[in-house]
Amino acid sequence: MKSIFYSRFFILLPWILIVIIVIDIDTKRLSVRNTASFYLSRLGNVQQRQVVRTTRTSSSTSSGSNTSSPPVIYAITPTYSRVVQKAELTRLANTFRQVPHFHWVVVEDSNSHTELVSRFLARSGVRYTHLNVLTPRRFKRTGMPRATEQRNLALGWLRGRRASKDKGVVFFADDDNSYSLELFEEMRSTRKVSVWPVGLVGGRRYERPLVKNGKVVGWYTGWKADRPFAIDMAGFAVNLQVILSNPRALFKRRGAKPGMQESDFLKQITKVEDLEPKAQNCTQVLVWHTRTEKVNLGNETKRQQDSIFIEV
Amino acid sequence: MKSIFYSRFFILLPWILIVIIVIDIDTKRLSVRNTASFYLSRLGNVQQRQVVRTTRTSSSTSSGSNTSSPPVIYAITPTYSRVVQKAELTRLANTFRQVPHFHWVVVEDSNSHTELVSRFLARSGVRYTHLNVLTPRRFKRTGMPRATEQRNLALGWLRGRRASKDKGVVFFADDDNSYSLELFEEMRSTRKVSVWPVGLVGGRRYERPLVKNGKVVGWYTGWKADRPFAIDMAGFAVNLQVILSNPRALFKRRGAKPGMQESDFLKQITKVEDLEPKAQNCTQVLVWHTRTEKVNLGNETKRQQDSIFIEV
Repeated sequence: MKSIFYSRFFILLPWILIVIIVIDIDTKRLSVRNTASFYLSRLGNVQQRQVVRTTRTSSSTSSGSNTSSPPVIYAITPTYSRVVQKAELTRLANTFRQVPHFHWVVVEDSNSHTELVSRFLARSGVRYTHLNVLTPRRFKRTGMPRATEQRNLALGWLRGRRASKDKGVVFFADDDNSYSLELFEEMRSTRKVSVWPVGLVGGRRYERPLVKNGKVVGWYTGWKADRPFAIDMAGFAVNLQVILSNPRALFKRRGAKPGMQESDFLKQITKVEDLEPKAQNCTQVLVWHTRTEKVNLGNETKRQQDSIFIEV
Repeated sequence: MKSIFYSRFFILLPWILIVIIVIDIDTKRLSVRNTASFYLSRLGNVQQRQVVRTTRTSSSTSSGSNTSSPPVIYAITPTYSRVVQKAELTRLANTFRQVPHFHWVVVEDSNSHTELVSRFLARSGVRYTHLNVLTPRRFKRTGMPRATEQRNLALGWLRGRRASKDKGVVFFADDDNSYSLELFEEMRSTRKVSVWPVGLVGGRRYERPLVKNGKVVGWYTGWKADRPFAIDMAGFAVNLQVILSNPRALFKRRGAKPGMQESDFLKQITKVEDLEPKAQNCTQVLVWHTRTEKVNLGNETKRQQDSIFIEV
C-alpha cells in the first residue's frame, strides 16, 4: 500500500511541477511581449519597421480603436517647400519618434506629394498620413492667415477615417516650433479642449491662459487681449470626438481677421469656462514658438556649380 | 519486469522534461535582458534613469573603456543664455537621446553653471558633462570667432578625463543646428578625421568636400574657397585618440581670422589627403546649419506683467 502511494506520488509530483512551470513561462512570455512593445512604442516603432504608411488614397490601418490603449495623438503639421524644410522636418520627426501612440498628419501646400516629403516620411520612423492641398494664390499674401486649407484637409481626413469608437487627441503642430516630450503626455488626457502656455510668442517671452480654481479666467498675452481665445495654434489640443461631433468646425477664410484663426476655430467647439488647463495650471512652458531664420543663398549662383544634384 | 520498466520510465520522463524546461527558461531570461538593454541603450537610458551625471568637479564615470563596445560620440556644445536657449536645447536633447553611446559635453558661456541649464541637463535623459567658462568681454565683438574658450575647455576636459584605452569620436555640435540620426552613425567609424557635407551654410544650399577615388580633393563652398579646410564646424569629427595625441591642438584667439577657426584647428591635427569622407563620399546632407530667428520681445514691457515667474 505504502509503495503504491509513493510510486503514484513520484509520478504525479513532476507532472504537477511541469504544469506550474509551463504556466510560469506563459506569464513571462507575456511580460516579454509587453516590455518589448513598450520600448518599441517609445521608439516610434523604428526598430521593427512596423511603420504604418497611409496615404490619401490608401485605406487607413490601426485607428486606435482598441479601447484599452491610450488615446492616439494626431499631430497636424502643414508644411511647404522651402530650403529649410527638410531640416525642420528632421528635428520634428526626431521629437515625434519618441512619443508613443502618435499619428503624424502631414499636409503639404502643393498640387501633389513632393518627392522630398514622401521620401522623408517613409524613412521617418513615425506613423503618418501624407496629404496635400495647394493654397490658392489669392490667399498667399502677407496678413492673410496661413495653412488654413491644409489644417481643414486634415480635419476632413480625421472625420472621414475615424469614428466614435476611436480614442484620440488632435493637436496643430507647426513645423518650426520646438516641442518637449512632456507636452504630449500633458495633452493626452484632453477630454474636450485643453490649453497650456506657449513660449516666445506675441512679442513676449510667453503667453498663457490665466487659471483660477482650475478654470481659465483670462489670458496673459502680448497682443489683442480681447480675442475670446487669446491663444496660439500650439497652445491647445482637442479631443477627437469633439472634432467628429462638430463636423462643420473649420478654420475660416471668409471674414477671418489676421491672427484670429485659433480664436475663430475654438469658438465653434467650446467655451472659455470649459477649457481644461494643463502644464500645472498653465504655469509651465513645454512648447516654444521658434522661428527659423531665412537662409542667405547669396553665394548660390556666384561661384562654381556642383556637378551633381544633392537634396538638402 | 515490464511493469518496473514502465514505472521507472514514467518517473524519469517528467524529471527530464523539467530539466529541459528549466534550461529553456534560463535562455529566455538572458534574451529578455539583452532585448531590454538594447532598447534602453537606444533610449539613451532614459527609462531606467541610468543617466550618468558628471560635472566639472565630480570624477568621471563610464569612460567607454570597454573595448568591445562601439566608440562613444562626444558632442561638444557651447551654449549661452538667451530667450531661445531652452527651446534649442530641448530639441537638441530630443535628437541626442536617440543616439546610442553618446556623451554630451555642454559648455556654458558663464561664470558658473546656470540653474536653467543645470536643471535641464539633469532631466534631459542624455549622458552629459556640464562645464562653464566665461568668454572675456574683449572677445565678444562682431567679427570675432565665437565659443573658442568653450570648445577649448571641452577639449581640456577630454584630455584630462580620457586615456589611450578609451574609444571615442569628438564632434562640435552647436546648439542651433539640425541633426539627423544617420549623421552620428556615419561619424562613429572615424579613424582619424572624417568630413561630410553641411546644409544651409556659406550663403549656399550646402557646402561639401569634393571627393575623388575616396580622397578629398577640394571644397565646394560659397565662401573663402582658399581656406586649407573650407568646412563648417558641423562638417567634421575627430577620433578621440587624435585629440589626446595632439595635446596642444586648440581653437585659437591670437592671429585667428574670422571664419578660420575650423581650418586653423584642423591644420594642427591632419592633412587634407588624410581626411575620411563620410555620407556616401560626401554626397548626402545629414546636418543643417539652421539659425533661429531673434525673438521679438517688443510687447514684454508694454502690457500687464505676470504675477508669477515662469521659466521659458
